[in-house]
Amino acid sequence: MTKLVLISRDFDLSHLAPAILRAAPELEVTLHGREDAADAEVAVCWNPPVGAIAALPKLRLVHSIAAGVDNILTDPSLPGVPVCRVVDPRHARGMSEFVTWGVLHFHRQLDRVISNQRDENWFRPEQRDPSTCSVGVMGLGEIGSRVATDLHRRGFAVRGWARRARDLAGIETFEGSQGLEPFLQGTEILVCLLPLTDETRGILNARTFDALRPGAKLIHVGRGEHLVPGDLLSALNEERISGAIVDVFPNEPLPRGDSFWRAKNMIVTPHMASVASPDTIGLQVAENVRRLVKGEALHNVVDVAQGY
Amino acid sequence: MTKLVLISRDFDLSHLAPAILRAAPELEVTLHGREDAADAEVAVCWNPPVGAIAALPKLRLVHSIAAGVDNILTDPSLPGVPVCRVVDPRHARGMSEFVTWGVLHFHRQLDRVISNQRDENWFRPEQRDPSTCSVGVMGLGEIGSRVATDLHRRGFAVRGWARRARDLAGIETFEGSQGLEPFLQGTEILVCLLPLTDETRGILNARTFDALRPGAKLIHVGRGEHLVPGDLLSALNEERISGAIVDVFPNEPLPRGDSFWRAKNMIVTPHMASVASPDTIGLQVAENVRRLVKGEALHNVVDVAQGY
Ligand SMILES: NC(=O)c1ccc[n+]([C@@H]2O[C@H](COP(=O)([O-])OP(=O)(O)OC[C@H]3O[C@@H](n4cnc5c(N)ncnc54)[C@H](OP(=O)(O)O)[C@@H]3O)[C@@H](O)[C@H]2O)c1
Ligand SMILES: NC(=O)c1ccc[n+]([C@@H]2O[C@H](COP(=O)([O-])OP(=O)(O)OC[C@H]3O[C@@H](n4cnc5c(N)ncnc54)[C@H](OP(=O)(O)O)[C@@H]3O)[C@@H](O)[C@H]2O)c1
Repeated sequence: MTKLVLISRDFDLSHLAPAILRAAPELEVTLHGREDAADAEVAVCWNPPVGAIAALPKLRLVHSIAAGVDNILTDPSLPGVPVCRVVDPRHARGMSEFVTWGVLHFHRQLDRVISNQRDENWFRPEQRDPSTCSVGVMGLGEIGSRVATDLHRRGFAVRGWARRARDLAGIETFEGSQGLEPFLQGTEILVCLLPLTDETRGILNARTFDALRPGAKLIHVGRGEHLVPGDLLSALNEERISGAIVDVFPNEPLPRGDSFWRAKNMIVTPHMASVASPDTIGLQVAENVRRLVKGEALHNVVDVAQGY
Repeated sequence: MTKLVLISRDFDLSHLAPAILRAAPELEVTLHGREDAADAEVAVCWNPPVGAIAALPKLRLVHSIAAGVDNILTDPSLPGVPVCRVVDPRHARGMSEFVTWGVLHFHRQLDRVISNQRDENWFRPEQRDPSTCSVGVMGLGEIGSRVATDLHRRGFAVRGWARRARDLAGIETFEGSQGLEPFLQGTEILVCLLPLTDETRGILNARTFDALRPGAKLIHVGRGEHLVPGDLLSALNEERISGAIVDVFPNEPLPRGDSFWRAKNMIVTPHMASVASPDTIGLQVAENVRRLVKGEALHNVVDVAQGY
């Protein structure tokens, strides 16, 4: 009987045990810190404490409960076992809901309209055709490509940026570090859907903001460490960025008193853009454990060296 | 040379003249109130003053600049000439943008998240599958059917209500007055896209609100007179309706000091959900005038007796 351990330093993952057992009743599921966790062969993680995974001598697989694995790969003691993540069209759809909401919020100037309401000020914004509004999506992976495609279908002028060349119908794509500047230059609403790696850490900085169209908007749904907080706060204050929706922060929950809560033209959302459902996590973990036991190829293995 | 007159009691329609002349340079365009307007054969209107249309002895056609014609048909002195309106897929798309924004705002609980931000309160709302969120669209015409279809494609459980039976893929439809109650009973987010007629005036009233699921939301983008203001204010105060986005009001612009500006859980938007572009209006008016002159069937004629 294969044993799984649920590990997180900041989330209670115990609600995932029933979902995993529904998908694979033959497994045994325990929690990090319990005595019987020591001989687990599979670690199912979100933000595991550093060293917790290396302390499992029988470990054969690490599974993220999310699309991102940065929260796992930052542990320098991580042993050389496969690391898998959750990839799910419903997860991507949830992200598309959130980003579509944000893009429409800015495109239709609802930010201005809602602030006008406070002053009892009736002011009809100009209604632009979405083809005149350029949305730039950073990261064209499982989630970013779905978001970009949905926005393109709505008529927006969508451009995307990835590491390697991509071919997405109707979407202008840019690649690699030399493609970043031209990608940013034409962008009016910037959406960050990158994974967090050494190359992408701090990528949302003053230089990036300055390259965008003046008064651009930001929708940041990647990871907190993509963002240089002071640079965004200055750009907002000076209205080089005229609106931001930020869902992820280096410190989560965002502490009370943090300047972001009251930053100008900024909406703070609580890392809610999209989560995989417990059922999906249960099914995908169960399927990968079955494959592991039978010696078959695992699904959604990440490239640990590459970082995503 | 056919002469057109632009008539409105509250809007400056002079910006439409260049668009009409671009589409049909052979026409003459003047403004209501000018001396040369008396022999106009076509009236292009938004909220014309009562009697202004009847005062045109050579009149052969009345053209609305919008999708709705209630602002014209309310004039009891209206002569028996054809009344046409603007029907345009881009106009419907603009409405779909606005309603999609509103539905996602409620579905993803952004209303709650944004109000939490004021208290520096990090609270992750539950992420529901859109198939568990029932959106009810009142009015399945050119605009309502597009809105309903777009929401269905996003995965929402969409139901619709019209006068006659409708067949829209994936959408449960209800018809006529006997269909109203069952339609409302299953609805969590109610969208009003009805035309204003004697039958629909005041349809957004306490009985309608009480029939919805408790704590339902309202997105009202029809006409101000659909709504009984006091009934909505009570429903909001008592949280029988837990959120409303209202774009249209009996008195527009909504006067300063009106209770709606500060009503609980209400977003006031300035009749902006969708306007047809001047180019579209110009092209459609020009085409109908050409047809009128040649004696061909007009486009988008409304049924005056029916009211839409
Ligand atoms: N806020 C939330 O609720 C939430 C929820 C889910 C996910 N997320 C975030 O979304 C991210 C993306 O998820 P995913 O499943 O779409 O990831 P993915 O499938 O691994 O795709 C990553 C994309 O980023 C591109 N990329 C990586 N490094 C890059 C670099 N240095 N320069 C340019 N492009 C680079 C990749 O380029 P190639 O195509 O060339 O490889 C790929 O297109 C996650 O890692 C996480 O940070 C957030
Ligand atoms: N806020 C804004 O910016 C904005 C912009 C554009 C339009 N609008 C509003 O949207 C409305 C709809 O436009 P449209 O072009 O879609 O109109 P439409 O094509 O004339 O369609 C009207 C729809 O309403 C239904 N209906 C009419 N009377 C009814 C009744 N008594 N009971 C039940 N259903 C009834 C009709 O049913 P049948 O299909 O059976 O005929 C039809 O489905 C306009 O009249 C206007 O009020 C608002």
